[in-house]
Amino acid sequence: MSKEKIPYKIYLSENEMPTAWYNLRADMKNKPAPLLNPATLKPMEAADLAPVFCDELIAQELDDTTPFFAIPEEVLTYYKMFRPSPLIRAYFLEKQLDTPAKIYYKFEGNNTSGSHKLNSALAQAYYAKKQGLKGVTTETGAGQWGTALSMACAYFDLDCKVYMVKVSYEQKPFRREVMRTYGASVTPSPSMETEVGRKILEAHPGTNGSLGCAISEAVEKATETPGYRYVLGSVLNQVLLHQSVIGLETKTALDKYGVKPDIIIGCAGGGSNLGGLIAPFMGEKLRGEADYRFIAVEPASCPSLTRGRFAYDYCDTGMVCPLAKMYTLGSGFMPASNHAGGLRYHGMNTVLSQLYADGVMEAVSVKQTSVFEAAEQFARAEGILPAPESSHAIRAAIDEALKCKETGEEKTILFGLTGTGYFDMVAYEKFHDGNMSDYVPTDEEIAGNLAGLPKVD
Amino acid sequence: MSKEKIPYKIYLSENEMPTAWYNLRADMKNKPAPLLNPATLKPMEAADLAPVFCDELIAQELDDTTPFFAIPEEVLTYYKMFRPSPLIRAYFLEKQLDTPAKIYYKFEGNNTSGSHKLNSALAQAYYAKKQGLKGVTTETGAGQWGTALSMACAYFDLDCKVYMVKVSYEQKPFRREVMRTYGASVTPSPSMETEVGRKILEAHPGTNGSLGCAISEAVEKATETPGYRYVLGSVLNQVLLHQSVIGLETKTALDKYGVKPDIIIGCAGGGSNLGGLIAPFMGEKLRGEADYRFIAVEPASCPSLTRGRFAYDYCDTGMVCPLAKMYTLGSGFMPASNHAGGLRYHGMNTVLSQLYADGVMEAVSVKQTSVFEAAEQFARAEGILPAPESSHAIRAAIDEALKCKETGEEKTILFGLTGTGYFDMVAYEKFHDGNMSDYVPTDEEIAGNLAGLPKVD
Repeated sequence: MSKEKIPYKIYLSENEMPTAWYNLRADMKNKPAPLLNPATLKPMEAADLAPVFCDELIAQELDDTTPFFAIPEEVLTYYKMFRPSPLIRAYFLEKQLDTPAKIYYKFEGNNTSGSHKLNSALAQAYYAKKQGLKGVTTETGAGQWGTALSMACAYFDLDCKVYMVKVSYEQKPFRREVMRTYGASVTPSPSMETEVGRKILEAHPGTNGSLGCAISEAVEKATETPGYRYVLGSVLNQVLLHQSVIGLETKTALDKYGVKPDIIIGCAGGGSNLGGLIAPFMGEKLRGEADYRFIAVEPASCPSLTRGRFAYDYCDTGMVCPLAKMYTLGSGFMPASNHAGGLRYHGMNTVLSQLYADGVMEAVSVKQTSVFEAAEQFARAEGILPAPESSHAIRAAIDEALKCKETGEEKTILFGLTGTGYFDMVAYEKFHDGNMSDYVPTDEEIAGNLAGLPKVD
Repeated sequence: MSKEKIPYKIYLSENEMPTAWYNLRADMKNKPAPLLNPATLKPMEAADLAPVFCDELIAQELDDTTPFFAIPEEVLTYYKMFRPSPLIRAYFLEKQLDTPAKIYYKFEGNNTSGSHKLNSALAQAYYAKKQGLKGVTTETGAGQWGTALSMACAYFDLDCKVYMVKVSYEQKPFRREVMRTYGASVTPSPSMETEVGRKILEAHPGTNGSLGCAISEAVEKATETPGYRYVLGSVLNQVLLHQSVIGLETKTALDKYGVKPDIIIGCAGGGSNLGGLIAPFMGEKLRGEADYRFIAVEPASCPSLTRGRFAYDYCDTGMVCPLAKMYTLGSGFMPASNHAGGLRYHGMNTVLSQLYADGVMEAVSVKQTSVFEAAEQFARAEGILPAPESSHAIRAAIDEALKCKETGEEKTILFGLTGTGYFDMVAYEKFHDGNMSDYVPTDEEIAGNLAGLPKVD
């Protein structure tokens, strides 16, 4: 523990980087419920998952007892392209807010994918290559995951086939070109390339697409193409495992300076960033070694934790994927088309769902306009132009810092700045022009979707 | 000097950051020739420049004897938002090229402006604020400088009026939105807002614009608006002074590991990045303390050093700015419209021009397609998607590394990676689709432009 002035940016050295991922499930008393086979409604076993996922990733997905998984040497080497990522003390923002709070953020946007997604993409591409596969398929919403996977596949010399949610494909044409630079092929979803895509287009012509729907297409393509598997950038437990590198680095950096956060905040769509950031801190809390407040921040337009139901549901719109016990709005839920950022997924990772159900984590939902107000305020104070997704966490962090201003409390607030908004300028333009709406689903809409949940005991 | 393994990324700590800018002119025996007043053709004095530039920046512009200028405390604080920038060992690229060469690059793209331009923007905005000004005007080509200035003006609470070269304004609409996020106003140039803009539009309807023309508009606006001055992101000696922070950090980082580069490479448009990167190394060379090869890399479509003339010329198309003795293609030179990146300026900074004339620096020109080939190769190897400007330096660095492969020499190559290409995906798309041309001006075109140079003894 050092008493020197905390720098603006804390960089660990490369030999301080974590060499193993941390599996939070090992420390959970209430384990997340198992995935269910959609055909039999029995717990999925490795053999059931093998046609879809890579073998070693399945092992990670199903393992809720092993606390650490060594990061393979090749993955660790590629991590050094962009990791350790900086933990930034928000001196400028603190001053602008005139708050006694101390604010830190872990910035994961300093790589070409522009987000934390590369942490898991590298791991998944590595295991696919190790298994001797020819390629992988995936879906992407805002395009961060697709970009990350394209990069990882370029490094490991794998084919990469991306189904991109249609509204993002159209709003973010440059993302497509970045993926192409790394050699990927990109298709707007729903597409006519798959059976599930054709069905959805028939039922909902002119749909803007959704993550759930793009997942269904990517899974179908993977299982019907020899030498291919499907990979996923969020929602799954294996992804949270890989993303634990965010929290592990953050904790090492804070410990070096003797800093203990009071509140830890992350945006939550499928849960990958939030789960990764909080992992080692939540582990301490579950083991009774320390206490923290954890806040998941989700869009008011897609409020799975705050307004969904904790129940078994399909992970995808097409109902071909396993069922997970999670907070869900129903697999048929489609966020409003004016919703700008990512975080469009109808459910929430099972680990995070269980933690929320157990009352060890809080959740809030925030409206779109207030998110972009926070984004612009942050950009002008801290310089970094944040992704809309990340700006949900910024909104909550600013709100907590302003509460400290009222009460005079010197709380330490940590949040995850998952990425940059360079490819989201269409959304920023809407905000600047006053064309952004704050649509929130009605109780009836949500109840209608939830009525269709599968019946599972 | 340390013998430990050189990490992938070398980050200095904040207390290792330079606290003064280095003025290379102080170590030059042949000083760059003075600017001339366009009306009288006599050397410009501070009083002549005062209506256009901020007072302290004029002092820096005209000073060719003071070796160091202290970086103001407030500028140093804002530098800590994004500096020190990483010096990266290109292990992945070396492996891909299978070269015995050791390649390093100083990466200046890890900030929202996406380039090194913020180094000088912060300094210039600081001095403008200190002088009590209301706002500043400027031009921008690729948009990097305009974005950087918008950010700096947001921090120092100054109005910011940007004239953006029309072709970039159209090809990079998202850049405009970034500038707007930071509160700037942006006008495509040539515009009807200024007399010089109206004249150029009359003479060349449908022109794509040029940096020289946008400069003329910004200068006119600044001099005719009370409380405004003009600021410039390249070409000027003051900008090279501020950009010396790049070279100073690089040298400190290399010295820590006992590394001495054999070849130092930078892209060259107006010269700001190249001049900043090489400054402390060139100082050593001029003082006889060390020797290095320096290579300026320019686009074949705008080859001021390699095909221009070393002569006095106007700094702007409108011929309202001072004359500078520099390598120039003539102030009326307009690069072909299919030219994708920045580096469109007709001349070259006077310091770099003098060094080139004195034979202590080399220059090469490279064609557009080969630049994008290098960019894509680099992106797939090193992860970072480079700006087209920066990719000129990458092209030359790869070429030198491949020469080492032939000869077996283990040379150490250092180049400046000035920025990222996230806002240049239209150019990448042209490259992917095979729609990029390698137009090079003919000898007759260049001779025709040079025939119009002003007559100055």
